[in-house]
Amino acid sequence: MRATVYRNVGEVQVENVPDAVIQQPTDAIVRITHACICGSDLWFYRGFDGWKPGWRMGHEWMGIVEQVGSQVRKIKRGDRVIAPFAFSDGSCKYCSRGLQTSCLQGGFWGGASNDGGQAEAIRAPLADATLIVLPPSVEGDDAMLKAILPLTDVMSTGHHAAVSAGVQPGSKVAVIGDGAVGLCAVLAAKRLGAERIIILGRHQKRLDIARQFGATDMVTSRDEQAVSEVLEMTNGGVDSVLECVGTKSSMDTAISIAYPGGAIGYVGVPHGSQTINLSQMFMSNIMLRGGVAPVRTYIPELLADVVAGKLDPSPVLDLTVDLDGVPRGYAAMDSREAIKVMVRL
Amino acid sequence: MRATVYRNVGEVQVENVPDAVIQQPTDAIVRITHACICGSDLWFYRGFDGWKPGWRMGHEWMGIVEQVGSQVRKIKRGDRVIAPFAFSDGSCKYCSRGLQTSCLQGGFWGGASNDGGQAEAIRAPLADATLIVLPPSVEGDDAMLKAILPLTDVMSTGHHAAVSAGVQPGSKVAVIGDGAVGLCAVLAAKRLGAERIIILGRHQKRLDIARQFGATDMVTSRDEQAVSEVLEMTNGGVDSVLECVGTKSSMDTAISIAYPGGAIGYVGVPHGSQTINLSQMFMSNIMLRGGVAPVRTYIPELLADVVAGKLDPSPVLDLTVDLDGVPRGYAAMDSREAIKVMVRL
Repeated sequence: MRATVYRNVGEVQVENVPDAVIQQPTDAIVRITHACICGSDLWFYRGFDGWKPGWRMGHEWMGIVEQVGSQVRKIKRGDRVIAPFAFSDGSCKYCSRGLQTSCLQGGFWGGASNDGGQAEAIRAPLADATLIVLPPSVEGDDAMLKAILPLTDVMSTGHHAAVSAGVQPGSKVAVIGDGAVGLCAVLAAKRLGAERIIILGRHQKRLDIARQFGATDMVTSRDEQAVSEVLEMTNGGVDSVLECVGTKSSMDTAISIAYPGGAIGYVGVPHGSQTINLSQMFMSNIMLRGGVAPVRTYIPELLADVVAGKLDPSPVLDLTVDLDGVPRGYAAMDSREAIKVMVRL
Repeated sequence: MRATVYRNVGEVQVENVPDAVIQQPTDAIVRITHACICGSDLWFYRGFDGWKPGWRMGHEWMGIVEQVGSQVRKIKRGDRVIAPFAFSDGSCKYCSRGLQTSCLQGGFWGGASNDGGQAEAIRAPLADATLIVLPPSVEGDDAMLKAILPLTDVMSTGHHAAVSAGVQPGSKVAVIGDGAVGLCAVLAAKRLGAERIIILGRHQKRLDIARQFGATDMVTSRDEQAVSEVLEMTNGGVDSVLECVGTKSSMDTAISIAYPGGAIGYVGVPHGSQTINLSQMFMSNIMLRGGVAPVRTYIPELLADVVAGKLDPSPVLDLTVDLDGVPRGYAAMDSREAIKVMVRL
């Protein structure tokens, strides 16, 4: 089969690799129909995080089950399934608290030892607990499938930011970052009833989507200037900051625009944000909460809204490529030509 | 009148100062009967935080109202009152959310511009909103008054750590620090129904009080050794860490002993803990919440329990001095001879 493989900084290739096969009785083999390239794939692509040549790429995917292991009970051949970006057993002490990203048996797609999602097929461990079967009604509805696909990561991660920051009806919210996660965080905040949603970003095309998703205000400046604009327009800060970038600058901004007693929901993977202004957080009782989103917990609830036509994050997928086009998709995201790339097999 | 004044690193003096007088119609003048020396006073005493010669000391106090300004309605001459460590107007946008430590008109006792509590008397601004009148039944009951006194700061701050970390019935809790706040945090966790309370400290006398307050386990090692002991005894960490120290070492320990999805309630004023392991927090979805305790919010609830005989933090007050003895009290706390000093006037 063919799969996307990391080769070097700025270089991924679609290569022939051994076919995905059942290794454990709890595995399923899924033929992939849709995948995405994620902003976090770009960290690897750009040479951060120690990604090694030969490692598989892609953690957002959807497809049709081709084969299941002998102990798989809930998933069957022919099911259309989506996967969260992490697999999990559904029964360990962390999974039973809804934190499947800390699963004792779980892991993440791609890398050295697991198949990646930007490929023709994938071996899905712990299939019963990991995969979510889609209702037959979505089959053949390309727009619906495209709306469901972001639940695998970015929509659920934006939702995690909003939940972590305690967004509720009437909340004043700021979203830092206009990448796919930031835009989905706007949508999530709107869905949870936020009254005012300020997005901090710099790209007009993305801000247009933010507006469509429910953002009420745009701040296009950065750092101190952005802070003073938000403080002025909100008379002192927002209840909830959804930090969707992960840099020191974005975390500093988040702390400075949170209302005393407010909360930061952070889902941007920390890169260079190890030094945070803890004294400022302390003096103002600002809560910091978030992390790797337990997407498996959120998908059923969000999927119900997508299937009901009440939630549609698909506008973040603004470029579609086929499997051969994956390297071009990475380049397009790296140059910010595309917000997020869908891979259609 | 006489009041405690900061003079130099390691040097406080009880000096003659101008009498406290009504300056604003919302002021009250209170004759102090009880005060404390706080662990956070030691930061100033040790030359941190830029305390200047001549500044007044003390933010934990109780006394009898001698005089009130023309706009004071609820507080009257002769009332016995306690004060939280910060004064507040009770009506600004922060106070109305219960975060009086961020009050727009508020402030903290002592320093350059406000009277301190380690003195014969004090001018209390915003008296109606700040002061809490004690029931007449406590008058003359020395043991009861001593049990009430820690509500001004350390007991309420320990409670803030427990509330911030989400302690609830059945919680597994670790308390870092065996100072007065740490000990009160044990008491607070017990009061909120924690099932297991592990204290990390090093002083036998303090650990004995922790045991009396409800601690179920003691860890006397530090850093990596302490982490491995807690992880082993809890099979992976605790739900709630109450961080009552404020150093980088204690925050690192807190992050490492929290269960994935758990919470750190931090009330140790950050000193040198600006660099925290955000990646570790992120991967395990550990929440960080806390800060300057909104003591004014907590006192009524805690006071009811003290008056009812259900809560008694007074064992943390293990040395009593008179006003002249305040310098000796600082020295005793600085050398860890005393946990916490009560000043009895």
